[in-house]
Amino acid sequence: MRSTLHQLEATIRDRRSADPASSYVAKMAHKGRAKIAQKVGEEAVETVIAAMAGHRDEVVGESADLLFHLLLLLADMDVPFDAVLDELERREGISGIAEKAARPKD
Amino acid sequence: MRSTLHQLEATIRDRRSADPASSYVAKMAHKGRAKIAQKVGEEAVETVIAAMAGHRDEVVGESADLLFHLLLLLADMDVPFDAVLDELERREGISGIAEKAARPKD
Amino acid sequence: MRSTLHQLEATIRDRRSADPASSYVAKMAHKGRAKIAQKVGEEAVETVIAAMAGHRDEVVGESADLLFHLLLLLADMDVPFDAVLDELERREGISGIAEKAARPKD
Amino acid sequence: MRSTLHQLEATIRDRRSADPASSYVAKMAHKGRAKIAQKVGEEAVETVIAAMAGHRDEVVGESADLLFHLLLLLADMDVPFDAVLDELERREGISGIAEKAARPKD
Repeated sequence: MRSTLHQLEATIRDRRSADPASSYVAKMAHKGRAKIAQKVGEEAVETVIAAMAGHRDEVVGESADLLFHLLLLLADMDVPFDAVLDELERREGISGIAEKAARPKD
Repeated sequence: MRSTLHQLEATIRDRRSADPASSYVAKMAHKGRAKIAQKVGEEAVETVIAAMAGHRDEVVGESADLLFHLLLLLADMDVPFDAVLDELERREGISGIAEKAARPKD
Repeated sequence: MRSTLHQLEATIRDRRSADPASSYVAKMAHKGRAKIAQKVGEEAVETVIAAMAGHRDEVVGESADLLFHLLLLLADMDVPFDAVLDELERREGISGIAEKAARPKD
Repeated sequence: MRSTLHQLEATIRDRRSADPASSYVAKMAHKGRAKIAQKVGEEAVETVIAAMAGHRDEVVGESADLLFHLLLLLADMDVPFDAVLDELERREGISGIAEKAARPKD
């Protein structure tokens, strides 16, 4: 049981109001939602490309970048990370009974 | 301290070899890496669009989709989710001293 | 010298007000900008994946999808395709003298 | 009837073998397909974000970037741009009769 992502979420919320010159989190918060969302999209593209190239180490690094920027985006929207985990648990509960029916859209 | 993502990772690894007709995880594993990677990219795009539209509920749902498919991709590459968390912790340790220097690429 | 994209642009502008039940263009116009933008992002992801997989035929098909949806998005914003071509020509003119200096951002 | 994209395609094919120090096209060709594909994905994300923000000028600039890098990717795969235009014309011909039936996947 690890709390890395919750600790990171707390750190991000702390740093958003720091000096943009010394904190990447504050710099991105200052740039605003469009730039943060752009980074989420870009890191996802890099994760996809690393996966298609079969580079496991790069997938680890790009997935970390993707998660970090997703947490930045959630913080920017004042959405707690637990809301996302709740949603995943809710689906898992449903899908425990009938996984296929719960994911009809594919 | 929640273990939602680790439980989900374990569930995904279990279901990959299930019947593709009854399990979404098995169906995606059967379709292969390109289709799983495609879903990661698509869910990231949907997260970006929901964020730009300012729809918090959709951001929660799309972030859950993104995380779910990222875990599918990591499982497909036999990369443990803890490798991604380790990478995030390593960066956080570095950035605790000098966050800006550790993220020069932006 | 081919005018495929301009003819397609004209067709798209015509069909936007057609019956959504019989026209894909009208259906997407009815769904709105977020759904059109989502398709642009998704088709780009599919193009990237086809390229990384080395599948030339798929790259042709996905590039066609990407261009088609980009034209839908431009029409939705009332941006003429010629504005994009003008921008490409402007850059090409600059870069004819010093290409590298004109694209400093990479 | 404009030939901007075909001229750009010819220019790109010329410059691919130029000095990477003085040509962006040559630099990207040298970096290879994964980096070119990454740029296609990133420019699509930026186009999506500009559209969602309602910034028409940025949509023009990002669409130009997207088309430019798509041409770089097609050149890298030795796919003529005309193959993409042929595919668009083929679909248009089909869809002239029954547009909806020709695009069942949405």
